[in-house]
Amino acid sequence: MSKKLNVAVLGASGYTGSELVRMLLRHPAVEIVALSADSKAGKTMADVFPQFAPFALPRLVKIDEIDLGLVDVVFCALPHATTQVVLKGVIAAKPDLKVIDLSADFRLADPAAYETWYGHAHQALELQAEAVYGLTEIHRAAISRARLVANPGCFTTCSLLPVLPLLTAGAIDPDEIVVDAKTGMSGAGRAAKEAMLFSEVAEGLHAYGVANHRHTAELDQEYSLAAGRPVKPTFTPHLTPMIRGIYATIYVRTTPGHDAADLHTILAERYKAEPFVTVLPLGQVPQSRHVKGSNHVQIGVVPDRIPGRAIVISTLDNLVKGASGQAIQNMNVVCGLAEGTGIDQVALFP
Amino acid sequence: MSKKLNVAVLGASGYTGSELVRMLLRHPAVEIVALSADSKAGKTMADVFPQFAPFALPRLVKIDEIDLGLVDVVFCALPHATTQVVLKGVIAAKPDLKVIDLSADFRLADPAAYETWYGHAHQALELQAEAVYGLTEIHRAAISRARLVANPGCFTTCSLLPVLPLLTAGAIDPDEIVVDAKTGMSGAGRAAKEAMLFSEVAEGLHAYGVANHRHTAELDQEYSLAAGRPVKPTFTPHLTPMIRGIYATIYVRTTPGHDAADLHTILAERYKAEPFVTVLPLGQVPQSRHVKGSNHVQIGVVPDRIPGRAIVISTLDNLVKGASGQAIQNMNVVCGLAEGTGIDQVALFP
Amino acid sequence: MSKKLNVAVLGASGYTGSELVRMLLRHPAVEIVALSADSKAGKTMADVFPQFAPFALPRLVKIDEIDLGLVDVVFCALPHATTQVVLKGVIAAKPDLKVIDLSADFRLADPAAYETWYGHAHQALELQAEAVYGLTEIHRAAISRARLVANPGCFTTCSLLPVLPLLTAGAIDPDEIVVDAKTGMSGAGRAAKEAMLFSEVAEGLHAYGVANHRHTAELDQEYSLAAGRPVKPTFTPHLTPMIRGIYATIYVRTTPGHDAADLHTILAERYKAEPFVTVLPLGQVPQSRHVKGSNHVQIGVVPDRIPGRAIVISTLDNLVKGASGQAIQNMNVVCGLAEGTGIDQVALFP
Amino acid sequence: MSKKLNVAVLGASGYTGSELVRMLLRHPAVEIVALSADSKAGKTMADVFPQFAPFALPRLVKIDEIDLGLVDVVFCALPHATTQVVLKGVIAAKPDLKVIDLSADFRLADPAAYETWYGHAHQALELQAEAVYGLTEIHRAAISRARLVANPGCFTTCSLLPVLPLLTAGAIDPDEIVVDAKTGMSGAGRAAKEAMLFSEVAEGLHAYGVANHRHTAELDQEYSLAAGRPVKPTFTPHLTPMIRGIYATIYVRTTPGHDAADLHTILAERYKAEPFVTVLPLGQVPQSRHVKGSNHVQIGVVPDRIPGRAIVISTLDNLVKGASGQAIQNMNVVCGLAEGTGIDQVALFP
Repeated sequence: MSKKLNVAVLGASGYTGSELVRMLLRHPAVEIVALSADSKAGKTMADVFPQFAPFALPRLVKIDEIDLGLVDVVFCALPHATTQVVLKGVIAAKPDLKVIDLSADFRLADPAAYETWYGHAHQALELQAEAVYGLTEIHRAAISRARLVANPGCFTTCSLLPVLPLLTAGAIDPDEIVVDAKTGMSGAGRAAKEAMLFSEVAEGLHAYGVANHRHTAELDQEYSLAAGRPVKPTFTPHLTPMIRGIYATIYVRTTPGHDAADLHTILAERYKAEPFVTVLPLGQVPQSRHVKGSNHVQIGVVPDRIPGRAIVISTLDNLVKGASGQAIQNMNVVCGLAEGTGIDQVALFP
Repeated sequence: MSKKLNVAVLGASGYTGSELVRMLLRHPAVEIVALSADSKAGKTMADVFPQFAPFALPRLVKIDEIDLGLVDVVFCALPHATTQVVLKGVIAAKPDLKVIDLSADFRLADPAAYETWYGHAHQALELQAEAVYGLTEIHRAAISRARLVANPGCFTTCSLLPVLPLLTAGAIDPDEIVVDAKTGMSGAGRAAKEAMLFSEVAEGLHAYGVANHRHTAELDQEYSLAAGRPVKPTFTPHLTPMIRGIYATIYVRTTPGHDAADLHTILAERYKAEPFVTVLPLGQVPQSRHVKGSNHVQIGVVPDRIPGRAIVISTLDNLVKGASGQAIQNMNVVCGLAEGTGIDQVALFP
Repeated sequence: MSKKLNVAVLGASGYTGSELVRMLLRHPAVEIVALSADSKAGKTMADVFPQFAPFALPRLVKIDEIDLGLVDVVFCALPHATTQVVLKGVIAAKPDLKVIDLSADFRLADPAAYETWYGHAHQALELQAEAVYGLTEIHRAAISRARLVANPGCFTTCSLLPVLPLLTAGAIDPDEIVVDAKTGMSGAGRAAKEAMLFSEVAEGLHAYGVANHRHTAELDQEYSLAAGRPVKPTFTPHLTPMIRGIYATIYVRTTPGHDAADLHTILAERYKAEPFVTVLPLGQVPQSRHVKGSNHVQIGVVPDRIPGRAIVISTLDNLVKGASGQAIQNMNVVCGLAEGTGIDQVALFP
Repeated sequence: MSKKLNVAVLGASGYTGSELVRMLLRHPAVEIVALSADSKAGKTMADVFPQFAPFALPRLVKIDEIDLGLVDVVFCALPHATTQVVLKGVIAAKPDLKVIDLSADFRLADPAAYETWYGHAHQALELQAEAVYGLTEIHRAAISRARLVANPGCFTTCSLLPVLPLLTAGAIDPDEIVVDAKTGMSGAGRAAKEAMLFSEVAEGLHAYGVANHRHTAELDQEYSLAAGRPVKPTFTPHLTPMIRGIYATIYVRTTPGHDAADLHTILAERYKAEPFVTVLPLGQVPQSRHVKGSNHVQIGVVPDRIPGRAIVISTLDNLVKGASGQAIQNMNVVCGLAEGTGIDQVALFP
């Protein structure tokens, strides 16, 4: 094998960071050369994530302690808003870096949409202009030419893959999309908050961010792109008592001349060559547990009893295909490696 | 206090049975005189539910061992189809019994609907004709005169209470109701099935019975009654990794002249005198954990970002207000007791 | 009924506080007249615990806003160390108050032991001297005469009840007690900490505070008192992925002339008249789920295959018998009410 | 690469079966050529485990449909007692097969011990005589020469690795070992039983098989072997509400001249070259969540406050190092492959 890629992970002490390290440790073409974690700089990864005790890994440092000269690829798993400032500096310091960003900062192509949803002007507009939206199965060609990939959100990936081909085909009514999504708790991150304590979360569920969750902006952008005209779905996320998993139950209406079986055919055809997307037989319902720990997506289509309506269901692991797994998939595309390298683990069930 | 009511529970070894016993043990106007459990006859309740070890309770018997002459009220928590045969016999043997049935057998007033959804002709049509649908807050007057109350399903109670007043008021479009419901596992009962094992269920969720769950028939019946014309909602239930709780996220469209705030006003007004139904302030979202173990329902209304749409959310404990608690509430109404007697426990959180 | 007791709860925004309110709301001889919560003063209880939305309750205030003149009984659910300072002031202001303290501040009778385990001198030594250790079944007579009751810890209550009668009877070797205890997460409280997040806790367990958990000091004190000579057990607590429950697996050795059956007889005899303590038949093992939400304790005794050894197992709900339920039990004793008033809920299972 | 090993899995529809398939699918030197599942013969693996939907796998067959001529290695994940009969036939039919058995049938070397613990005479005594106990780190040399490897139990592996070196070194008292073990639910298998339903298991824990669990026999055998004289520990397993994980809290007493620090040194030294066993720094406690999905074991040693006592803690994933991972590790040893091939996944946390 030729020389390995030297990879740095910024923000390694959060869940998407540890998940990147979990998979990169077993990626045959990658060497992890730097790990940053601002408030935990100086500690080892085993200090903050004891599952790494058996492995040799670089000590956690502050970002400015990283020698970018040694780095080929940066994964950025920093909080929103911080990210755009940090990456502006990093890319200025080493313009030929490849960057896969897992934050929301570069996902919206329209600066006005960004400002509306995030409440402040974007601080790195030139980078935003060049960033490619990293939904691999949809934007693979553009990603392969990108310097900066904006990795999609977990809800978004799960809600886009089963719908975009239907919009492109004109098989569903763009004005009649309702996405009822459920997530595991790891999507909320590792910051200590009362509402995320085990005793608060276990044995209960609830909707949150109803009608105003920020991932909605990504749905608007990509649905509209696929439909060729503005699309605004109804989107309701729910927090559920499991660690991993996104489950999107999507209510759609077929356009004249189409029925649920057509929707199924369109999706099965679109994804038949995609190793990470499985379209189940018509009428079969996916379960989030069957993709846990893997980069796989499972999609099902069920006809409603009301003519002209169908339920499209999609599920993935929010930390893998919904974040770090897709990030590595994008790195593989950007760097010309086989797309599935290092992310081929089979789901962990039970 | 006057003489206590003598109560028998048929099917005491299942979850709705044990839940009846839990509350009836503390009901000041009730004496539990008989408990049946076919396959576990001869055992004590503490053998099958060790939480009852501290309490004196009748031994489990077969139904035909019960001396109905001593019984004033029967709660029937038997499986579907068995129930109609058993109750036909029981009521024939003692016509002045009061019966609260927790099965699905007497919920559908239309024999043809019953046959369609359950796949066989009803075996006790005269009883079906007299049965009253036991959604207490809606059918209280009829329940007070009933001999046989058909206690509603858990999904149904949760999906009816927040919608019926809106249909009656003409404030929402009856053809545009989508109910995305989530349930805890205890709703699936105590029968041993592979798909209900802890290792299968924890850490995952999935939809089931999509577009064909039998509770849909009850929604059709009661929604239509409230709207004054046929209504068929889209209904998708999901199994989630918690023991108790139903959570219904209901997507509705307002009729001209109404908005989400009106929906909220209608519900708040309708339920302001109901002790077991709380309508939260507009925009506030309920959580299933806050009704666990109680007979309470919490309802929220949130405007969608798309004009003319709203999200109505409702939650209850499937074993209490969704089953045994409402059953006792109905018994109280039938027997002229204060409606909240014995079911006033505060929710157990955390 | 005579005039109700006016009760205040200090620290109502934590889990033991909300649990007190849950039960006191249904206590027939109590009126809740004040609720304090320092950082959440000004909010309603429903703001911080939405399960109370259906109920009328005093607004949360700061402690010094409470008019003690109106209060008969204070429950104190404040953090360790703060408590002794607050209660010193409160009792000075109204010497005839009855106080049930749920913190650790007044549990250790020996000021030196307090200093050793808590790392600082006690700030209210006179109060400490008069406080009565509130293990109701053991110290009932003293509690009935107390002004200040120090409610025991959750691990402690669970580990004391099944062992004290055996030590008093001289049936087990005081030098050979190993307590392997498991707790649900609510025992760790409501303060936001990374290690208590759902994603950290679910799907895993671990020991903590091995050989140095502060509840050990209470075990030393009460075991020694019962044995009539110093006793130091080995004590290892574990955090497990459930909300409620303490489960103590206690390894003991019988003294000559005794065997496991004798241990069982001693316990069964000792607790036969205690409504909240159930000793299961010899060889039967309790389960934490069967006491959830109730003030009950279940105890089992199993002979080991090695002669002279036995395993004694005990379980309770850490928030009820392990905290707020026993606190109300103690209030009932202190105030001359029937001991089980307001705490007679049957366990919530499933 | 040379020709791949052709592997068959008998009993592929249970959890250890699916776990074998999960890892063997990614094992670079293995080809899965046959999968058996008696009652589910004719189905695909994706029918019984939908996580395998993306992969090509042989259809499930009955055992006698397998052409053993094509098979190099058999993994046997069948129930106890059935196994000895099946393997007797399989090995008779193809004597040069390599067999890794995951049942309990060949773990006990002493036929009398087998009869005592399993209640019937062994049906394949010649095979029992040649079987090697597959605790890889301890019996590696013998395993490398074996035709039939008896893979250890999950509790056993977890309780042996941290204790055997201490017994061999004479550092702990063999008569004073208490193993308090906790397991996740997947160790109980996939057979549908009431006691294993989610609603029964979640939110509770309990001991079971106290003083008579069959894994005790393996502890006796291997502890005695290491100590050079008979050893009988006290062993108490507990069922806890998590899917995966074994956690053994082991109470030991040091022999004169040793203390807890010595125990730590002995273990650290013994396992320093073992990639799958991590001995944490003295005083640090392992957590089961940090080995989930991996073949790793983490061990901690903590001094008790009572001189001469120590607590040794060990954790592993019952389905990986406790079953299928160690089985593949053993296959690698038997077949001369690098020992970690195909089982090098990093633990999945959170």
